[in-house]
Amino acid sequence: MTVRAIEWVPGAGTDGRGVLRILDQTVLPASTTYLDLETVDALVAAIEVLAVRGAPALGVAGALGVVVALDEGRRVGWDAGRLDFEIDRVRNARPTAVNLAWGVDQVRGLMPQGREAVLRAALELAADDEAANRELSRQAADWLLARTGRDRLRILTHCNAGMLATSAWGTALGVVRELHARGAVEFVYADETRPLLQGARLTAWELAADGIPHAVQVDSAAASTILRGLVDCAVVGADRIAANGDVANKIGTLGVALACHEAGVPLLVAAPWSTVDLAMADGAGIEVEERAGDEVTTLAGVRTAPASSAGFNPAFDVTPARFVAAVATERGVIEPAAGQTPGDTAPPA
Amino acid sequence: MTVRAIEWVPGAGTDGRGVLRILDQTVLPASTTYLDLETVDALVAAIEVLAVRGAPALGVAGALGVVVALDEGRRVGWDAGRLDFEIDRVRNARPTAVNLAWGVDQVRGLMPQGREAVLRAALELAADDEAANRELSRQAADWLLARTGRDRLRILTHCNAGMLATSAWGTALGVVRELHARGAVEFVYADETRPLLQGARLTAWELAADGIPHAVQVDSAAASTILRGLVDCAVVGADRIAANGDVANKIGTLGVALACHEAGVPLLVAAPWSTVDLAMADGAGIEVEERAGDEVTTLAGVRTAPASSAGFNPAFDVTPARFVAAVATERGVIEPAAGQTPGDTAPPA
Repeated sequence: MTVRAIEWVPGAGTDGRGVLRILDQTVLPASTTYLDLETVDALVAAIEVLAVRGAPALGVAGALGVVVALDEGRRVGWDAGRLDFEIDRVRNARPTAVNLAWGVDQVRGLMPQGREAVLRAALELAADDEAANRELSRQAADWLLARTGRDRLRILTHCNAGMLATSAWGTALGVVRELHARGAVEFVYADETRPLLQGARLTAWELAADGIPHAVQVDSAAASTILRGLVDCAVVGADRIAANGDVANKIGTLGVALACHEAGVPLLVAAPWSTVDLAMADGAGIEVEERAGDEVTTLAGVRTAPASSAGFNPAFDVTPARFVAAVATERGVIEPAAGQTPGDTAPPA
Repeated sequence: MTVRAIEWVPGAGTDGRGVLRILDQTVLPASTTYLDLETVDALVAAIEVLAVRGAPALGVAGALGVVVALDEGRRVGWDAGRLDFEIDRVRNARPTAVNLAWGVDQVRGLMPQGREAVLRAALELAADDEAANRELSRQAADWLLARTGRDRLRILTHCNAGMLATSAWGTALGVVRELHARGAVEFVYADETRPLLQGARLTAWELAADGIPHAVQVDSAAASTILRGLVDCAVVGADRIAANGDVANKIGTLGVALACHEAGVPLLVAAPWSTVDLAMADGAGIEVEERAGDEVTTLAGVRTAPASSAGFNPAFDVTPARFVAAVATERGVIEPAAGQTPGDTAPPA
């Protein structure tokens, strides 16, 4: 596949200065639709409805979002204060994902050097993300094969941490892809990932496109699939990793982690180093985004619960480090359950 | 509410001998529709699509199903062999639910005494079920209040074990109802229960009708809701309980149990004694029904996963006894996690 979840298209856009183009993930797999985002409003809305999502992709969206704000500000005449305000709106569009703020902050300091310097840095960040994904996938694949002692792995994954969640290649699905390239994937169980079905819609779509044998299961089947001995490992992404190794990721990851712990099956978290938030001592401090209840009480536009029933919709959960066998980043593999932490082992950048 | 999930309507039906009427649970809460089942084909189909469901209700369906078979056989002229074959079809319509076979077996032996004797026994079985539910609810409520030391409970439940799953009152929701009558329910978190959404559709409908404060959450939120300290206990039903206290129940129960165990929150299983299968030494022998994959890969008729992606759809999981704090039946409360087992403590019937 040569799909890009997020890219910069030079020369396009209303003023011919280039445009931020995303693949609208809310309508996959039924429809492949691209959105050109030329305003901060459009970008923030796309982030909020998860048209663009996934921690690494949000990092790229944050960095390119600064360019979007600069171009919009130039067109409509924002002063420096308004520009800062609008860039902050991009930065804070989703509270749990550290990468979004990180992406903004990586390029924001270059604004005095001009729009081209910001754009160049943002594009470098996207290229670095792909390189990081490929490197962490190699490291994770090595670790999983060594740890399990198997030639071919049966893998469980949750949500979508694939090329759709990154600038390219993927993190958790990047690991699966790397293993597949080595002939080392036997089967993948993809949790459907309610409420928004990123597993059924996006992960299955990526796996099908790459010809990787898989099945979709309801999220609540994960514990029994793991405890019945049907998988050798679980591989997930992350939205934020605290200094002690606690991991914030899509709601349901904690349940996968508990089952893996009970079954003695390793849970590997695959994420670029930019997902590590050393300023966050542990998971207790991570703000968990609570989304609208009707994402739970409706499905495909159909109300599933009585009109008077509220929906409770935390979008993430926090998995304690002791349940995380490995965190694989482009800087290497850390084993939180064995006492290694990102905070202790952080190498120089 | 005066809804009956399953009842016998005297004098109705094509031959005026009475008819088995069920509330079609596949279309709740959008529509309240009753189905009159006059043939074994219609009854088996209703059981298979879960128009009637829930372990205790299936017990009643099994017993009354023998009457349905007798009446159909009389109308169309089945011989004894054919009649036995058709009754076995009812008995085996769902493999995991022990109550269905139990209900058939409770009345089948009365066939030599005639149709009226079978019908009378089946109706007694339904009346006994309601009485059992009310008694086990009282016992469970006492146990939960004593165990938690709280006056008002925040409760998590999974799937639907309410009046819709029984002849009346309910098991797990019967416990909630009993606590509510005592003013001892603060809030209920109802897992939506994919793939067929019995929690969102049925449990929320019962809770709303009784004015019990609640919210619906995705199944994969359960672990984090429990570990964040938002609930004091979890209460679920059961489809089969082995002699050692292992519990087969709706897929996802195991994940709830693991989180409860990790958090030190008691998991109570509420079920009539007929759910206990003393012939089954432990959960390893329980056949887990695997249902059609498209229940997972479609939702409300809309395909959620790519056409080439298979669905993996185990309908139940088995929770080891060590994670089950209590099993409440009408015969009392057993504490499997503390070493008590149904097999050891079974009192005389």
